[in-house]
Amino acid sequence: MNEVEKYIRDIQDFPKEGVVFKDIATLLQNPTAMQLCKKQLIKLVGDQKIDKVIGIESRGFFFGTLLAEHYNAGFIPVRKPGKLPYKTISESYDLEYGTDAVEIHIDAIEKGERVLIHDDVLATGGTAQAVCKLVERLGGEIVQCNFIIELDFLNGKDKLGDNTITSLLNY
Amino acid sequence: MNEVEKYIRDIQDFPKEGVVFKDIATLLQNPTAMQLCKKQLIKLVGDQKIDKVIGIESRGFFFGTLLAEHYNAGFIPVRKPGKLPYKTISESYDLEYGTDAVEIHIDAIEKGERVLIHDDVLATGGTAQAVCKLVERLGGEIVQCNFIIELDFLNGKDKLGDNTITSLLNY
Repeated sequence: MNEVEKYIRDIQDFPKEGVVFKDIATLLQNPTAMQLCKKQLIKLVGDQKIDKVIGIESRGFFFGTLLAEHYNAGFIPVRKPGKLPYKTISESYDLEYGTDAVEIHIDAIEKGERVLIHDDVLATGGTAQAVCKLVERLGGEIVQCNFIIELDFLNGKDKLGDNTITSLLNY
Repeated sequence: MNEVEKYIRDIQDFPKEGVVFKDIATLLQNPTAMQLCKKQLIKLVGDQKIDKVIGIESRGFFFGTLLAEHYNAGFIPVRKPGKLPYKTISESYDLEYGTDAVEIHIDAIEKGERVLIHDDVLATGGTAQAVCKLVERLGGEIVQCNFIIELDFLNGKDKLGDNTITSLLNY
């Protein structure tokens, strides 16, 4: 058992009945656990050049800035529609019912920059796939899609093509 | 002029006409600027014992985890209703039209813990005031309310009582 796992709390029936939600709040509120998780995420990414770290709204923001600082990279928030104030490009993705979208500022990534994408959980992969498309449209090079938790039974990896996917904990 | 200021971008008419929005995305995407801002925030808080750092959804998350790490404190997200998965308490506050609310997990703060509240901007102070109430209800001691930007003309400070308020940039 990965030691990070014991700091993550299972919440039954959130956000809806039948779903077991992996809550990282218990991890964040413990500084030792936060450091442990950060170190392990960095180990997954390895020692390489990163120009920008993307954190996906909004739980991807927590470790996103910590990772950006470690790699001496800029931090880029990818957000839900209407949240980013400057000019954006947008990618929509399918939900179980309906669609949603994510946006990035058009000047967030320069052509050829090496981009690390981070979020707390890889579930169906719809959001992460849309984020990959945003990075590609801006000419960025995706170094890795990096998660704390991967829900294997939802096969999110299948949506992410040839990108390198890493995660600390698999369920 | 504070050097951080030159990394902040003015966006006209966001989120609505007549408002000039202070965009910190340009600061975050520059690692030198991020470090500079972090160092200055830490200077404002000073060298003191902090048990928990609260980041207010969601732009308060960016520097919230960086501050938590610096102080070897736990990080606590305060979020909009329905976003936190475990048991919460809630405080509502007035908007220009209508009301909104913020929530915190009931186990986020232990009685007597020293809490630093952080957000990107202090505007009318409604959100920050609600967050202070949440901390007090859980028995926490508010060390400081800390912001990157304070919009002086909105008199947000008036809502925050005797709490220590610090901000890097005043407009």
